[in-house]
Amino acid sequence: MSHLLPDGAVHLAAVDAHRLAQWLGGGPRTVIVPAGALEQHGPHLPLGTDGLLSGRIAAAVAERVGALVAPTFTFGYKSQQKSGGGDHLTGTTSLDAQTLIALTRDVVGSLLRQGVRHVVVLNGHYENYQFLYEGIDLALRDGGVTADDDRCVLLLSYWDYVSAESLEAVYGDDFPGWDVEHGGVLETSLMLHLEPGSVWLDRAQEHPPARLPRFDRLPVVADRTPPSGCLSAPTGSSAEHGRLLFEQVVRDLAADLVAELG
Amino acid sequence: MSHLLPDGAVHLAAVDAHRLAQWLGGGPRTVIVPAGALEQHGPHLPLGTDGLLSGRIAAAVAERVGALVAPTFTFGYKSQQKSGGGDHLTGTTSLDAQTLIALTRDVVGSLLRQGVRHVVVLNGHYENYQFLYEGIDLALRDGGVTADDDRCVLLLSYWDYVSAESLEAVYGDDFPGWDVEHGGVLETSLMLHLEPGSVWLDRAQEHPPARLPRFDRLPVVADRTPPSGCLSAPTGSSAEHGRLLFEQVVRDLAADLVAELG
Amino acid sequence: MSHLLPDGAVHLAAVDAHRLAQWLGGGPRTVIVPAGALEQHGPHLPLGTDGLLSGRIAAAVAERVGALVAPTFTFGYKSQQKSGGGDHLTGTTSLDAQTLIALTRDVVGSLLRQGVRHVVVLNGHYENYQFLYEGIDLALRDGGVTADDDRCVLLLSYWDYVSAESLEAVYGDDFPGWDVEHGGVLETSLMLHLEPGSVWLDRAQEHPPARLPRFDRLPVVADRTPPSGCLSAPTGSSAEHGRLLFEQVVRDLAADLVAELG
Amino acid sequence: MSHLLPDGAVHLAAVDAHRLAQWLGGGPRTVIVPAGALEQHGPHLPLGTDGLLSGRIAAAVAERVGALVAPTFTFGYKSQQKSGGGDHLTGTTSLDAQTLIALTRDVVGSLLRQGVRHVVVLNGHYENYQFLYEGIDLALRDGGVTADDDRCVLLLSYWDYVSAESLEAVYGDDFPGWDVEHGGVLETSLMLHLEPGSVWLDRAQEHPPARLPRFDRLPVVADRTPPSGCLSAPTGSSAEHGRLLFEQVVRDLAADLVAELG
Amino acid sequence: MSHLLPDGAVHLAAVDAHRLAQWLGGGPRTVIVPAGALEQHGPHLPLGTDGLLSGRIAAAVAERVGALVAPTFTFGYKSQQKSGGGDHLTGTTSLDAQTLIALTRDVVGSLLRQGVRHVVVLNGHYENYQFLYEGIDLALRDGGVTADDDRCVLLLSYWDYVSAESLEAVYGDDFPGWDVEHGGVLETSLMLHLEPGSVWLDRAQEHPPARLPRFDRLPVVADRTPPSGCLSAPTGSSAEHGRLLFEQVVRDLAADLVAELG
Amino acid sequence: MSHLLPDGAVHLAAVDAHRLAQWLGGGPRTVIVPAGALEQHGPHLPLGTDGLLSGRIAAAVAERVGALVAPTFTFGYKSQQKSGGGDHLTGTTSLDAQTLIALTRDVVGSLLRQGVRHVVVLNGHYENYQFLYEGIDLALRDGGVTADDDRCVLLLSYWDYVSAESLEAVYGDDFPGWDVEHGGVLETSLMLHLEPGSVWLDRAQEHPPARLPRFDRLPVVADRTPPSGCLSAPTGSSAEHGRLLFEQVVRDLAADLVAELG
Repeated sequence: MSHLLPDGAVHLAAVDAHRLAQWLGGGPRTVIVPAGALEQHGPHLPLGTDGLLSGRIAAAVAERVGALVAPTFTFGYKSQQKSGGGDHLTGTTSLDAQTLIALTRDVVGSLLRQGVRHVVVLNGHYENYQFLYEGIDLALRDGGVTADDDRCVLLLSYWDYVSAESLEAVYGDDFPGWDVEHGGVLETSLMLHLEPGSVWLDRAQEHPPARLPRFDRLPVVADRTPPSGCLSAPTGSSAEHGRLLFEQVVRDLAADLVAELG
Repeated sequence: MSHLLPDGAVHLAAVDAHRLAQWLGGGPRTVIVPAGALEQHGPHLPLGTDGLLSGRIAAAVAERVGALVAPTFTFGYKSQQKSGGGDHLTGTTSLDAQTLIALTRDVVGSLLRQGVRHVVVLNGHYENYQFLYEGIDLALRDGGVTADDDRCVLLLSYWDYVSAESLEAVYGDDFPGWDVEHGGVLETSLMLHLEPGSVWLDRAQEHPPARLPRFDRLPVVADRTPPSGCLSAPTGSSAEHGRLLFEQVVRDLAADLVAELG
Repeated sequence: MSHLLPDGAVHLAAVDAHRLAQWLGGGPRTVIVPAGALEQHGPHLPLGTDGLLSGRIAAAVAERVGALVAPTFTFGYKSQQKSGGGDHLTGTTSLDAQTLIALTRDVVGSLLRQGVRHVVVLNGHYENYQFLYEGIDLALRDGGVTADDDRCVLLLSYWDYVSAESLEAVYGDDFPGWDVEHGGVLETSLMLHLEPGSVWLDRAQEHPPARLPRFDRLPVVADRTPPSGCLSAPTGSSAEHGRLLFEQVVRDLAADLVAELG
Repeated sequence: MSHLLPDGAVHLAAVDAHRLAQWLGGGPRTVIVPAGALEQHGPHLPLGTDGLLSGRIAAAVAERVGALVAPTFTFGYKSQQKSGGGDHLTGTTSLDAQTLIALTRDVVGSLLRQGVRHVVVLNGHYENYQFLYEGIDLALRDGGVTADDDRCVLLLSYWDYVSAESLEAVYGDDFPGWDVEHGGVLETSLMLHLEPGSVWLDRAQEHPPARLPRFDRLPVVADRTPPSGCLSAPTGSSAEHGRLLFEQVVRDLAADLVAELG
Repeated sequence: MSHLLPDGAVHLAAVDAHRLAQWLGGGPRTVIVPAGALEQHGPHLPLGTDGLLSGRIAAAVAERVGALVAPTFTFGYKSQQKSGGGDHLTGTTSLDAQTLIALTRDVVGSLLRQGVRHVVVLNGHYENYQFLYEGIDLALRDGGVTADDDRCVLLLSYWDYVSAESLEAVYGDDFPGWDVEHGGVLETSLMLHLEPGSVWLDRAQEHPPARLPRFDRLPVVADRTPPSGCLSAPTGSSAEHGRLLFEQVVRDLAADLVAELG
Repeated sequence: MSHLLPDGAVHLAAVDAHRLAQWLGGGPRTVIVPAGALEQHGPHLPLGTDGLLSGRIAAAVAERVGALVAPTFTFGYKSQQKSGGGDHLTGTTSLDAQTLIALTRDVVGSLLRQGVRHVVVLNGHYENYQFLYEGIDLALRDGGVTADDDRCVLLLSYWDYVSAESLEAVYGDDFPGWDVEHGGVLETSLMLHLEPGSVWLDRAQEHPPARLPRFDRLPVVADRTPPSGCLSAPTGSSAEHGRLLFEQVVRDLAADLVAELG
């Protein structure tokens, strides 16, 4: 069916409106909305890491399932110390909750009104999740989309698709937990696979995983974040690990979408 | 110093304004704000479970550390299927994100303006966390409270203080994960310890832990939630487990507050 | 019909979701939402007075008419000098208008969506009224509830049900007006009847009713509020007066609900 | 000092910016903001009655005290059945709470930033009061205006300045209460004095004062409002009564402003 | 049909509710909403110029087409340096975007709900346009008014109806562009025609049109605005030019409304 | 100084946080924020045209002046019929005003807080302008940035930098006006120069410029928009024209920034 779209098109922004209308009219369609952030990721990864990864995974999944990918939400919710080092760090450029909720509400709502059957919001920034959820919920309420509607929205974070096998292959027994996987082995390996020119491993800093309290404290006590800004070091990252993670996540996520959405 | 307050007073609502003012003037003070929800918890637990548990834990901690407890946030953010069964279930009476954010912002901001040195927001409803966080962040921004201020706010969920030892004592090797601990052994045991008259174990339904997808789907596919509304069964709950959990959490949380806040 | 609910249950928070669903399915039902505040009430009454009184009246009315009572709104709109002494006083912990409006909108809207036929918002804090009204109006608009619907919401302040006979019995000819009844004879007597352990009459201060200008001035001129924080003294309060007021208000309000709602 | 302004100027909208700047620079200045509504007032009074009356009273007071009058808020909060007949009636064109709050906040805030020392919000529509109050409170918070500032804002409804003597002169012993003074003797008399060409007494309907419940019910039961839309009949209105009321209110209000603001 | 209304009535505020209801029931009706601002217009024009002009044009058009005119929006969006000199100038009393949007949304929405078929928002303050547009769009969304509805809203700025012939007659070849027509020949001439008593030509300042950058800079560099506050001088203004402009605009706008709305 | 950044880096998202901090510490810095839309642009241009063009112009200007470019705002305000064909057209995925205002406020505010001295918002979607302006104004208010601050924000639309010479070179005497330059010669030529693979000239439709009324009508009368969705045809577009326009605009805009910001 993709002959309805420009050759190789996977990004909504790269499609013209006329072919999009035809494509939407040709059957139930899915659009994936990647969500990232502009957030410090240590000295070895670029600020745009989260949006870049969610966008690349979304594109690969879209190719497999015949979906289109909306422009990435390149700004995200505030970085929290226990998952991203904290919002006080230079480079981290964040949205208030209401802004991210509104952005999600508007974009999801508009896609559904245009006739998109399934919207998949694919999150790549830990702190975003609940605000994306609220935006989706409000968009469905606005549109009167209830349980007996054939339209739906899925929300997920890509790391929830990393399998136990992949974890073991990458970390052995040393997986530190998703909470401190900020600028660590997962993100660094994926970037080495997908955007090696934007990784500066020689600038990475070695340090043990951050040990943060069980509570969040605000204002942040800055020196609880390691000087690198990462919550765990990228030691052991490799493009090969990245390839393995990427391919497994894309495969399983695509399969899940097919199973769920047909 | 507690002689400044009415005998045995631990709840802000039960103190008069004049003695409160004296108490606040007598040194750096802490107020704990419990947050819950009005949410279905299966056929064997009352709708107010989350607020009741966070309120009771807050009161016990407050007694230990000489703090006061604000009125509980008895309404919370929308129940999500993967952590609470879903917001479509009767009895679940929820707030939009902006409402909970605003409530938190106003209450935390007002307490700090009155001279409370430390506010501790003690969460008992999984879905609340990020919105409480945003409310706190906005209150601090409103008040111009920055890192060099001696005032601060802590945010935590009480289950993050359940120790590995307690987990093992209660679940053995069968801990199903916090995500499906909704109406399960933890909450039921705590309720049996704290409010046995509001637990109807004979009405509990036996079933395996819910197996939910890795994504959230909206609108919710209702029959993915077990008919009980619980995500795991309360089988194995006991008042004794509840006592053990309660005492350990209260002890460790109180110790943490003392260590952090002095 | 109350056999559908746990024995003696009058509070929504103390009911389980399954029995609530049965109860709602068994006929047109009423839920009462009490609204109070956390507000200074002089040296002899606790901060939670307003919510405590509206909650107790709601419970007694609910028992008579077979309704349930939702959790009390324990925070209210800003205390105004002419009706509550002013929002600058320690202990007074208030909400912005938009917060109280949103809270009311969400809770009323959710109750109606769950199948509650009649919601009664029972106010106990003078300053709340208009914001509760707006929240109700928006909830009805959201839900498309128009005049031909069989669902409705009532809003009232409990003192509007104090009869002329009660007034005379309590005050003789010296009723100072509802506007300065803040921490005065009405509230103190009710508290002496309902919560005598939370009244410290020995701490009460004697003074004439406050004489405030016909305008509101902001920022408040603090010394226009009597040092007690009360706008009239509680002299002459008694548990017996409280009992009389309580029983008369509960009786008349219950009768009014039955007459209006069936 | 009024030589700084155009001859006879009392309305801010009729002054040029350069002379306004001079006037503001010449000493502490007061601006009065009248607030009304576009609301049905029965068959004998125009929709703009509330704004017209508050605007005329403001102008007369301003002349006496050397103030300027801002453009009237010609739209107000929703008409409520117990004070205005209800918002469902044709002609009544109302604002949501947040809109009126925002309007007040912006205008009051801007006037204070321009150097106005005292702002007086003069209300002529019963339902507006609390929302005007909130708008003022937020404007002061925005501007960091606290108790030790020499700037302040007064808020009042003009009928609170009607004296007992005036009441008796106009109503004898039959004053029905301000609550049902909607389209009744007060407003009609004032209009006969101030805008006789906009009163159509021959169209007035005779009926006893409305007897409304002690609660507000929403949605409104329409036939509780008298067919005229008035809550009491204008029988007995006269231009002479209007003159008496107008002059007394203007005199006392002006005196109060002078006493309060210097 | 105008016999349904009070003699000569053209302003909604001057009509009573009963006759308005009859008029609305008598066929498809149009209400015009003029929008202005309270904004400095140099030393020779009053602050209310924009609302006064849009109101007067609206009234003249309404007379021709049998419409009514709602109360003018007398406050508008912030003055921008390139079109109004800047919001920092004394006298300029502006609304935040959200306030103007909300005001428009509420008023347009209410008029449509009352049965007005066509609403025409007639703008007289350059900076308002996009916010009026958004308010209209939201009102239509609220009301579920879609393309197949017979209700509609028009939005326009009156200067878009100045014809090429009028421009040439007034300016010859020296039309400086609408962007700098702030306090210039157009507005001054219209005021001389419509409100000569509120024009003080002897106070006007002569200067060439302002030369402002192609960008907006915030905060404003104040001395880029001419000391007069006008962006072009009123030199060459006359009541005769004003008459010509007024009559041509009213004629063409009325014709356009008839052609579009029937 | 650009040696502080990764080689050739011009995009903020491609820089790591540590080098960004150094760069910001090394002198007064400028960040450019491009703003676009996801909007139909006829059958021959992709939906992302506006963001793509503003992003490419921003990057070229940034290279010349040593600035960085923030991630593009890829969603914009609603397409209006007179400038973009209308928001009802498939593919057009727009934001409400408040969303775009909030996005701008958050991003501009965060950049200033991080130490960016000058922010330049470079607009490429006609309808965005006023909402970007409001977002900037609110960010400055939040941050207390007043006229005597050395920080500032510039806002501009790139077409305001097209010179008269360029216009003549591209259009001869047939420039139809910026208002109908949607999917026309300007945008198409720029795209042919910058992204030839995303232009499908063979799919372009020939038609005269749209003749739209002087008013906006909502809901939109759909068939007033040409079937192509463009307001003028791209006939006469060429990569050469695009190169000329691009280079002239980039040159003049860069020169303007240097002149204004140093």
